[in-house]
Amino acid sequence: MIAVIKPSATAEQKAGLVDWIRSQGVGVHVSEGHDYTVLGLIGDTSRIDMELIASLDIVDSVKRVAEPFKQCSRKFHPDDTVVDVGGVKIGGGHFAMIAGPCSVESREQIIAVAQAVKDAGAKLLRGGAFKPRTSPYSFQGLKDEGIELLLEAKKATGLPIVTEIMNANDLPLFEEVDVIQVGARNMQNFDLLKELGRTGKAILLKRGLANTLQELLLSAENIMIGGNARIILCERGIRTFETHTRNTLDLSAVPALHEMTHLPVVVDPSHATGQARLVEPMALAAAACGADGLMIEVHNDPIHALCDGAQSLTCAQFAGTARKVRAIRGALQ
Amino acid sequence: MIAVIKPSATAEQKAGLVDWIRSQGVGVHVSEGHDYTVLGLIGDTSRIDMELIASLDIVDSVKRVAEPFKQCSRKFHPDDTVVDVGGVKIGGGHFAMIAGPCSVESREQIIAVAQAVKDAGAKLLRGGAFKPRTSPYSFQGLKDEGIELLLEAKKATGLPIVTEIMNANDLPLFEEVDVIQVGARNMQNFDLLKELGRTGKAILLKRGLANTLQELLLSAENIMIGGNARIILCERGIRTFETHTRNTLDLSAVPALHEMTHLPVVVDPSHATGQARLVEPMALAAAACGADGLMIEVHNDPIHALCDGAQSLTCAQFAGTARKVRAIRGALQ
Amino acid sequence: MIAVIKPSATAEQKAGLVDWIRSQGVGVHVSEGHDYTVLGLIGDTSRIDMELIASLDIVDSVKRVAEPFKQCSRKFHPDDTVVDVGGVKIGGGHFAMIAGPCSVESREQIIAVAQAVKDAGAKLLRGGAFKPRTSPYSFQGLKDEGIELLLEAKKATGLPIVTEIMNANDLPLFEEVDVIQVGARNMQNFDLLKELGRTGKAILLKRGLANTLQELLLSAENIMIGGNARIILCERGIRTFETHTRNTLDLSAVPALHEMTHLPVVVDPSHATGQARLVEPMALAAAACGADGLMIEVHNDPIHALCDGAQSLTCAQFAGTARKVRAIRGALQ
Amino acid sequence: MIAVIKPSATAEQKAGLVDWIRSQGVGVHVSEGHDYTVLGLIGDTSRIDMELIASLDIVDSVKRVAEPFKQCSRKFHPDDTVVDVGGVKIGGGHFAMIAGPCSVESREQIIAVAQAVKDAGAKLLRGGAFKPRTSPYSFQGLKDEGIELLLEAKKATGLPIVTEIMNANDLPLFEEVDVIQVGARNMQNFDLLKELGRTGKAILLKRGLANTLQELLLSAENIMIGGNARIILCERGIRTFETHTRNTLDLSAVPALHEMTHLPVVVDPSHATGQARLVEPMALAAAACGADGLMIEVHNDPIHALCDGAQSLTCAQFAGTARKVRAIRGALQ
Repeated sequence: MIAVIKPSATAEQKAGLVDWIRSQGVGVHVSEGHDYTVLGLIGDTSRIDMELIASLDIVDSVKRVAEPFKQCSRKFHPDDTVVDVGGVKIGGGHFAMIAGPCSVESREQIIAVAQAVKDAGAKLLRGGAFKPRTSPYSFQGLKDEGIELLLEAKKATGLPIVTEIMNANDLPLFEEVDVIQVGARNMQNFDLLKELGRTGKAILLKRGLANTLQELLLSAENIMIGGNARIILCERGIRTFETHTRNTLDLSAVPALHEMTHLPVVVDPSHATGQARLVEPMALAAAACGADGLMIEVHNDPIHALCDGAQSLTCAQFAGTARKVRAIRGALQ
Repeated sequence: MIAVIKPSATAEQKAGLVDWIRSQGVGVHVSEGHDYTVLGLIGDTSRIDMELIASLDIVDSVKRVAEPFKQCSRKFHPDDTVVDVGGVKIGGGHFAMIAGPCSVESREQIIAVAQAVKDAGAKLLRGGAFKPRTSPYSFQGLKDEGIELLLEAKKATGLPIVTEIMNANDLPLFEEVDVIQVGARNMQNFDLLKELGRTGKAILLKRGLANTLQELLLSAENIMIGGNARIILCERGIRTFETHTRNTLDLSAVPALHEMTHLPVVVDPSHATGQARLVEPMALAAAACGADGLMIEVHNDPIHALCDGAQSLTCAQFAGTARKVRAIRGALQ
Repeated sequence: MIAVIKPSATAEQKAGLVDWIRSQGVGVHVSEGHDYTVLGLIGDTSRIDMELIASLDIVDSVKRVAEPFKQCSRKFHPDDTVVDVGGVKIGGGHFAMIAGPCSVESREQIIAVAQAVKDAGAKLLRGGAFKPRTSPYSFQGLKDEGIELLLEAKKATGLPIVTEIMNANDLPLFEEVDVIQVGARNMQNFDLLKELGRTGKAILLKRGLANTLQELLLSAENIMIGGNARIILCERGIRTFETHTRNTLDLSAVPALHEMTHLPVVVDPSHATGQARLVEPMALAAAACGADGLMIEVHNDPIHALCDGAQSLTCAQFAGTARKVRAIRGALQ
Repeated sequence: MIAVIKPSATAEQKAGLVDWIRSQGVGVHVSEGHDYTVLGLIGDTSRIDMELIASLDIVDSVKRVAEPFKQCSRKFHPDDTVVDVGGVKIGGGHFAMIAGPCSVESREQIIAVAQAVKDAGAKLLRGGAFKPRTSPYSFQGLKDEGIELLLEAKKATGLPIVTEIMNANDLPLFEEVDVIQVGARNMQNFDLLKELGRTGKAILLKRGLANTLQELLLSAENIMIGGNARIILCERGIRTFETHTRNTLDLSAVPALHEMTHLPVVVDPSHATGQARLVEPMALAAAACGADGLMIEVHNDPIHALCDGAQSLTCAQFAGTARKVRAIRGALQ
């Protein structure tokens, strides 16, 4: 960590700060410049509160040199992590399509979609049982009954299942769930993350709407310190000023995360764009820039079928997209 | 709610959508324009999933006319809500300064700061016991011990206390806490909100870093539907492209929220700016634009004192700021 | 255009507004709801000032139904525009790689790079002569001498050239330039746009750092109303809270713009990411989601060569990227 | 400037970079850490291209220690600049209200508004003659005729006038204009800025919608290097994800700019919020946090009067706001 000290700082203030830093068990290398003094902090600075130092009046700015995360850093683990979910591998060259409806609605629906996406090449089934909804008046999901139906679809098709958790107290219901999803709004629900770190479950961790890549990795680190390294990161769009799409899909996150971490990275183009017509082009783009998987909403229900669209693809559209994704991955090998 | 249908939609598709909407118990008024058809949805549309309709291929866009929130809307409750916390009133013309350290660190610290801020005019004491930290390696707070120390400071000074909760399972520890704070990162932790709605506690709900005013009010609504209307909203800065300040304090939120809702609105200039020198000007600005209170970090500990600064004000600086805040409020009466 | 009138508006105020709108030559359809009144404006509303109406106290909100742009809209021109630049076609299935150095520095440099990118498959040569620089102390480009050198490189290789204009007064210098680039910072320099609309030059119009797709198209419209429809749009990253990359490349803009307009869309992954290692994955992603071309920085100069990197690719790296781009385009046909 | 070199850099690469930096006339202090090497650049680094160095593959990151601007920095000019406009002073404790209509529409309108705002305490008259409009179909202003009318209003009332320029070629029309405004969209129109630097005119420079404070100051620097230091900075809202207000007024910019620069800072609450009801609270907040002036839209025309609102205040509302602004300034003295 480097701290730049303002020209206005007195020698006494500087000495005081250096002493305080050393009392935290970290070495300090002092470099006096024309105007500014630069302190180089040496040793394990991950416990030093960067914001506290930055907020001091004599400090111009602070910069982390070493990354604040460790276990998820590629530096400490150069090889790709491969997450194995019931025999399906993600990461390290293994690519998986995850598909299914936004919400689990009925036995017929989830089994029909599961069968269709399996036929089209999906390796995992997704479906929402607990739904985080901004409005308390919106449908909140079928909850435990939804998980039951997902497990029936798993039995019927053999597809491992992915579904979202909102509350660590619900963990007993997720015993047979293969991948537990942490939604964007819970990416910094640190108590939930730590609880998941004490399980052996594969975790699909979605990037928050306004969270940086470094914050995403620190959230992964909150899971990993508990001993659970089976984490799949998911880019799903960030909040920007642009309103034409629901969110702005940040595909540069894919190669950037691959540099920073060994964890696999999948992309959810459905939530990012909010428009069915944009799902396929963004899915192809994600495959082209090296994503380890895709998470795509697929439906077979009347209101969607009626209007031929929505954020969800039909099963037939998904099959077409999956073919093109395979073509792109083939072209790059 | 108004839905604009694309020119490309067939009559059959339009009829299908109208039928589906009516099946949800909502009336539809169809208005055919030159190019576009406009559907006006009439009745209680708060249960209609706006995003689902917006995502349909035949729909150009959807616009809510009525607000999606009710209990916190000023329309349904024209008078200001006054939250009474142990005799201290906030809202409806009652203004309260909330002050204290970022984290509770020791008995001496919290009692000394509590006494000092009380002398300077603060009406409530704040202090962090459970600390949401991005990095798992940072200090996570004194937890239950921190709450004990806050309660001692309350006993010593008579100031009601405000402290943050991160997990509904910790609620038993908050039994004697006067105001439970929900931090920015938990603003959309809906399970926590609903749990707090079942208590009778005053809740200080902070706006999330990337959340709109409407989303803030929907989070308040998630608390209110449980029966708890003792909610204080808090603007604490949003995440923008500007990096000079930690966040961008959105003061227009204060008069805008006062139009939209009857709930009181306080401002936290300390977290928003991250720089002690900016806290006073932003506190004065907040008072000038009608905030119902301020939440300010105040310290007396060595590292801060040494360097004369940080995001926290010293007790003496706080006393000066409090005087100017009173002068501004006086000038506007 | 739809205007939603607040419940608080009096009948007299509503009548006044309706009369005023009609006086602007636009029809009004009034629809009274439970709480709100909705005005549907019928006819050519492109001249109606939406912000003015939206800012009226009796107006809750205004929504454009018809797009505010015309000549660049796909509705009025369903077929793709193909821009022909000295025999090189862009758009309508024609794909072009545009490559070259950030700044023109010397005859040797520009000719060497031009030859190398031509050999690798580039169809146009780019190079900066007039450089928009945030700091007045930074190198501002070789200006007219830079254009001379570009023209020499064009003569040597046959590649049409693309270079940026900053001031309409410089137009005489651009007489032999094939494509005039409008940079992100000038996207809303309306006087410059209108001047370019009076030329017959192909224009490469970059999206501003904080501009929506609709604003980009309105800037194109500012060019087109002068009679010049030879416009190539360019996505080059938008400004968001994320600081890991210089900007956030918004690839969903590519399919979204293809829906909205008939103009070709190219992508500049070099400026968007600011990191050489991210250029190739983003170039591949852009090709996969349907971009009509790519604009890539390529260098051969010592400081870059020395350090094997920078935002620019080496000529050899560019050749590799170009091969993969062709493979992806092949796989999708 | 500090450059952090990655652990992966070879000794040869590091030596090459150090040599190159020294060849630019800047000293280098090399500090080898555990993992990272830190280069401290010593001397005049304002000409060093920070982005170029940051983009090198061996460079982890670069940080400016010294500010990239000079003439506008408070370090080089500790005393407040006071801009005198026809006897009206702005800055250094002198506060000025600037008021007038969005667009100049007629002789009657501009003279009536000018007289009214003068009576209410405004010191300068604003009015748009050249209007930057996103849509080419919107009213573009009365142009030279508008300036004529402003000059008539100036003659009638004695108020100096402020109006916007869009094109340096129009400068002859601005000969008798007192303050030339550069709009948000032209903040980085560097050719225009440099041209204005060669005049002796007072310049009101608005912050761009997505520009940082540092970029705003670098734009001021682009004017100052030409010899013109009569610059008034203007905060007018930035573009964020929040859509409730037109833009987000960043009032922390006021005290932050006062630290960074000696130039006066005024605030435009009308454009920032886009809603008349929010103008007064934001004007009061701006006065409370130390703004050197306010720029407020005031109208007297039928469509506004009819509907009692809009982004503009009525003359009577303005008079009330001006009184409260004076009360706040009085309370802080």
